[in-house]
Amino acid sequence: MRAQIGIIGAGPAGLMLAHLLNRRGIESVIIESRSREEIERTIRAGVLEQMTVDLLNETGAGERMMKMGMFHKGIEIRFNGKRRRIDMHELTGGKYVTIYPQHEVIKDLISARVKSGGEMYFSVSNVRLSDLDTAEPTITYLNENQEEEEIICDYIAGCDGFHGPSRQSIPADIRREYQKIYPYSWLGILAEAPPSAPELIYAHHEDGFALHSTRTPEIQRFYLQVDPADCIEDWSDERIWEKLRLRLSTDDEWRLIEGPVIQKNIVPMRSFICDPMQYGRLFLAGDAAHIVPPTGAKGLNLAMADVQVLAGALHDYYANGETRRLERYSAVCLRRIWKAERFSWYMTSMLHRHHHDSPFDYQIQLAELDHATSSKAAAQSLAENYVGLPLELEEQPLSVI
Amino acid sequence: MRAQIGIIGAGPAGLMLAHLLNRRGIESVIIESRSREEIERTIRAGVLEQMTVDLLNETGAGERMMKMGMFHKGIEIRFNGKRRRIDMHELTGGKYVTIYPQHEVIKDLISARVKSGGEMYFSVSNVRLSDLDTAEPTITYLNENQEEEEIICDYIAGCDGFHGPSRQSIPADIRREYQKIYPYSWLGILAEAPPSAPELIYAHHEDGFALHSTRTPEIQRFYLQVDPADCIEDWSDERIWEKLRLRLSTDDEWRLIEGPVIQKNIVPMRSFICDPMQYGRLFLAGDAAHIVPPTGAKGLNLAMADVQVLAGALHDYYANGETRRLERYSAVCLRRIWKAERFSWYMTSMLHRHHHDSPFDYQIQLAELDHATSSKAAAQSLAENYVGLPLELEEQPLSVI
Repeated sequence: MRAQIGIIGAGPAGLMLAHLLNRRGIESVIIESRSREEIERTIRAGVLEQMTVDLLNETGAGERMMKMGMFHKGIEIRFNGKRRRIDMHELTGGKYVTIYPQHEVIKDLISARVKSGGEMYFSVSNVRLSDLDTAEPTITYLNENQEEEEIICDYIAGCDGFHGPSRQSIPADIRREYQKIYPYSWLGILAEAPPSAPELIYAHHEDGFALHSTRTPEIQRFYLQVDPADCIEDWSDERIWEKLRLRLSTDDEWRLIEGPVIQKNIVPMRSFICDPMQYGRLFLAGDAAHIVPPTGAKGLNLAMADVQVLAGALHDYYANGETRRLERYSAVCLRRIWKAERFSWYMTSMLHRHHHDSPFDYQIQLAELDHATSSKAAAQSLAENYVGLPLELEEQPLSVI
Repeated sequence: MRAQIGIIGAGPAGLMLAHLLNRRGIESVIIESRSREEIERTIRAGVLEQMTVDLLNETGAGERMMKMGMFHKGIEIRFNGKRRRIDMHELTGGKYVTIYPQHEVIKDLISARVKSGGEMYFSVSNVRLSDLDTAEPTITYLNENQEEEEIICDYIAGCDGFHGPSRQSIPADIRREYQKIYPYSWLGILAEAPPSAPELIYAHHEDGFALHSTRTPEIQRFYLQVDPADCIEDWSDERIWEKLRLRLSTDDEWRLIEGPVIQKNIVPMRSFICDPMQYGRLFLAGDAAHIVPPTGAKGLNLAMADVQVLAGALHDYYANGETRRLERYSAVCLRRIWKAERFSWYMTSMLHRHHHDSPFDYQIQLAELDHATSSKAAAQSLAENYVGLPLELEEQPLSVI
């Protein structure tokens, strides 16, 4: 099989890249190791930056999102029993965050792919990349019937997540990996209950971090900081609600609305960056190249940013043979990615409790929270990062304020 | 001897408190363990917040400062060979920082004290505090002739620095101390050379932090991050200049102007807070209650903030017997102090290199520097803290932005 662009992975990065390329007349083939059913029901992130929302709308994939999504103008931050609101809408000149689950975005993008008639193969295995530094980089894999297939491409997009084979295909001696493993995990639940608050609540508490998020008017999402050694069996529903009540508690009359827990899981917290994000004719995008802890709600949004840069650079190549933007892809992406990594690390460090922290560290967290929610400039900086920093499609001169 | 207020320590806190009290008709006695000559020549901080400058001017002690001081509208931050400027004047609606050495402030305040005829005793020793929880708190000490003296006061102000006896007079079981010792020290030098730049330069470098400050048009102040185990003998002038050249180096034509080193010393880096800052009729102010690493230039300025709160509260007591503000002294001061501690910790953490730091931590520092100097909101937050947060003389409701 031949393709202009071979895309490994049908997550948000791979699907949106295919969608953007299709609109520019560039054809691609997508392969994905999981089944369509599996990726359409895997529960992941759900906070979309304004840029992601605009992108879905501008490319005609935003219709369901605009119907089902919830548009939040602010977030609440709790500490010391106090409630403070960051009015993101006001602080960013009118931007929102949109609550719309990642698997719904996936459904919308798969629909768009199906409608466009683009090739897309699920349940593949044994994916291997080769000849990346030649003009005919190649993907081989077993299709769902266990038959060997080969795609000879002009370029390959590695959108296969943290555990996929793409990143490992960049020779180890030119690939630098940066990583931080946090000493806590998140226990996430879905509960059948009405929302206890109109906006997301990020709660700092001596007992640990908690987050009240939302999914639909009937189903809410909650997270609790837990020990990374904990198993899901350690967390009975009763214990979960007890900790949520404690950590979200306030000095006022606010009450948590509880309900049946219909799903629970534990996810580790990691920061990870691969530099460079490209090698020869392979380009990484999304989780294949970088992971953020979920505190800043940046994972899906970073993937959407990467593929916009990549689609623009590929367009330059096919439209007029220009490869300058392809060559600078990694450098352009990484500057913004490091800022998002910084923000995710900052939010995580400010909000979680760690048993190695000294009493000084704890007070610094409280002072940071006080500062971030009482200084307009500091709140604005937080808000600008939360709704998403501007996307730079090309290398910019280092800005002077 | 009897006094309304007994002040232990003739540093900036003690001297400014006496000055403020004198202007309100409240008499005080100052005792100081060092000689006048010694405190007038000890080289310390030199960056004054706008609030400190305004205070000196409003109380008639600012005349020499306005002649000799240098008014800086911005600072420069260097990293990765790049130069970025934080325009504090622009970002804070017209505030400056003023470069005027602490020992010159001390001279000005001692002059004012002498002019007012207020009592002031130098070279005292064996200072002890007693009866703090009674209406007659008492200071005993040996005067410069080794004779025992006693001051029975209405209130005592402990302005005797980190190593003075005042803080230790608060019973250990009600005193909570927060501390962080940083794994690096500062080597400071004075050099006979013209300034190499018109404003302060804070430099992040793989080899460690460096700071180019200034003293007069003829004498400059430089600092280098060094190992806390280093002795001054480890640092020849040649080695110092070599490291300053390296760490301050830029991608452009900028050059360091060198000259004879006329003084050098090494200071440790510490964050420290005592809570509460009061007990019975004792009130701590300045370094007696809190220490910041010098990176944020906050030490002297925090002392000036404390004594303004204390002078106002003592005025309330003498004018109308009202003790509410005295009772809330510690709480009012500590909220702002913790913000300054946070800022000092932030600047220190962002700018110094630590051999335990991972490559991820190093990149996060660079992303933080990039963010702080390219986002207007982030730069504004830095600038507002650097020129000094607003002083709150009374307890404020937790502000909502």
